[in-house]
Amino acid sequence: MRAARYYGPGDIRVDDVDALEPGTREVRIDVTACGICGSDLHEYEAGPQTIPDDEPHPVTGERLPVTMGHEFSGTIVDTGPNVSMSTGTRVAVNPIVWCGDCRYCTEGNYHRCTSGGFVGLSGGGGGFSEEVVVSTEKVVPIPDGLPMESAALAEPFSVGLHAVRQSNLSTGVDVAVFGCGPIGLTIVQAARLSGAKSVIAVEPRDSRRERARESGADVLVDPRDVDPVEAIRDICEGGVDVAYEVAGVEQSVKQSIRSTRKGGEVTVVSLFDEEIPIHPNDIVLGERTLSGTLAYLGGPLSDREFRMTLKHFETGAFDPEALVTDTIGLSEIETQGFERLLDPSSDQVKILVRP
Amino acid sequence: MRAARYYGPGDIRVDDVDALEPGTREVRIDVTACGICGSDLHEYEAGPQTIPDDEPHPVTGERLPVTMGHEFSGTIVDTGPNVSMSTGTRVAVNPIVWCGDCRYCTEGNYHRCTSGGFVGLSGGGGGFSEEVVVSTEKVVPIPDGLPMESAALAEPFSVGLHAVRQSNLSTGVDVAVFGCGPIGLTIVQAARLSGAKSVIAVEPRDSRRERARESGADVLVDPRDVDPVEAIRDICEGGVDVAYEVAGVEQSVKQSIRSTRKGGEVTVVSLFDEEIPIHPNDIVLGERTLSGTLAYLGGPLSDREFRMTLKHFETGAFDPEALVTDTIGLSEIETQGFERLLDPSSDQVKILVRP
Repeated sequence: MRAARYYGPGDIRVDDVDALEPGTREVRIDVTACGICGSDLHEYEAGPQTIPDDEPHPVTGERLPVTMGHEFSGTIVDTGPNVSMSTGTRVAVNPIVWCGDCRYCTEGNYHRCTSGGFVGLSGGGGGFSEEVVVSTEKVVPIPDGLPMESAALAEPFSVGLHAVRQSNLSTGVDVAVFGCGPIGLTIVQAARLSGAKSVIAVEPRDSRRERARESGADVLVDPRDVDPVEAIRDICEGGVDVAYEVAGVEQSVKQSIRSTRKGGEVTVVSLFDEEIPIHPNDIVLGERTLSGTLAYLGGPLSDREFRMTLKHFETGAFDPEALVTDTIGLSEIETQGFERLLDPSSDQVKILVRP
Repeated sequence: MRAARYYGPGDIRVDDVDALEPGTREVRIDVTACGICGSDLHEYEAGPQTIPDDEPHPVTGERLPVTMGHEFSGTIVDTGPNVSMSTGTRVAVNPIVWCGDCRYCTEGNYHRCTSGGFVGLSGGGGGFSEEVVVSTEKVVPIPDGLPMESAALAEPFSVGLHAVRQSNLSTGVDVAVFGCGPIGLTIVQAARLSGAKSVIAVEPRDSRRERARESGADVLVDPRDVDPVEAIRDICEGGVDVAYEVAGVEQSVKQSIRSTRKGGEVTVVSLFDEEIPIHPNDIVLGERTLSGTLAYLGGPLSDREFRMTLKHFETGAFDPEALVTDTIGLSEIETQGFERLLDPSSDQVKILVRP
């Protein structure tokens, strides 16, 4: 079968690899669709970072080349021993990898596992592949009637839902979202759904601001035209209650802090390649809070955010189609997928791959 | 009457000033004792910062020279119209100054007032003075039997209590305190009182580590001897739940973040003169939280932290004597007070002035 594998920065190859047999409590999934994620792009551009390089991953035992793709849905086509799920079941996969032994796994926070990782980055196959074998503990059934392409986006929407659930967003508050790429848009939708009084989207690209509007943002701010801190303070009587930093740049971290009211909170959902200067007094004098969130809940009996997200897709509370800008085949993944998403002049947001 | 007034950096003069008559809902207090605070030292060394310089303070209408001292106790010796308190009543003063009109005052967070300040820094007299006139809304009666010198320290202990109450310190957690000056010691005591499983004190000065032990710290770490992050991770299986940064230096901010477990929390209680570099990934990958706290609750009907602190003094739950290293007269305030506290080789922690 064919699978897109990562060999190093700028080097992804569609290889013929052996199909795997599902072992005990494992299923084999025929992949329908898999989204290309910002962390895939980061590995392609500046990796390997999450992908194990010289040392094998402590849980999967694998190192590169590894099959990529961690936002996917598909259909169970084979089951190993001790599996109660049936072939033909449509499923999404929560790709969190965990050790099961560390302090964080023991307390049920598998996504904080000290040896953690993701299917599609850390080994264990991936969604940019015709088939994948995973443990049933990673498998979540898709509600009837929900398109497989939508279900593939349970992963990025769970990132946004987790960020909002970890923060102190209660109904009636003012919210700002700095950066409206795929994760920023899921946060706009999750904030809207959580009863935010206003959602202000800060984003320099016209096409992404427009998608933020479609996702429920009330106010759109182009930081090339106005100082977003001043704009937000004007709109919200001194600042928003909660801000999310999803742009991953120094300026927007500083702006997101200063755009919150005293007692306000910033949640950072992006990763950085180096240190950035911040003024602690911005935190202390305003009694502000700067938090970070990573991924979403995963692991045995703990993937409720994934299930909530699929339920929100089913009821229409979340709109995954607001993110999708194209669907391509596996052989086009590098030229029509990674390269287009890395082009800053492109209007692409989320590209799905159909292996 | 005599009062120590601030004229600019390095320039504090004991002047003869006119005594004031208490106005409506005001009392005149004969000051018994007033502590010298780190923020007094900062004004002396690098001010004026909180003290209004060119522009008069928006609430008090005053600018320098202002009488200093905001940690004080005394006895009511005169009352203005509409005051139900009696002369002879022993009181501590919550020095928070507020406008009463802004968003934060309106919601009861007077200590976050956009025009806020402190008696003894922003005008309105101060505790380094024979007498002071304040509004009854700032006055808290001292429990019978509690020494006046202890009650003067209700202010710094309220800072520590507020920091602990704002953080997620629940019984059974592991705590680290970076910096054991006066506020660090109040945090050690408040953390102990809140049921922390262990309290680790990180402090380079021998005399302050010893006071941390007297204040209830279980483990003392000298950061000149060992890497405090490694030491704390060894002791607490990967990190403490809650850390407090009270040293006000770049290195201890970084160390306090990295000394917490994933999902842990750092509360910064110190102020900084400039930006410092931090790595957002330390926050994001560990889902950590960096918060700041400032002062304590104040304002009408809102000064419960001050009252809690006085109650804790009365029951012996807080030990103010663990902080006090000397008591001096008003005329000695500069040479025996400020200068000794600013000498890094000195063993002084808290010096009380008796005007």
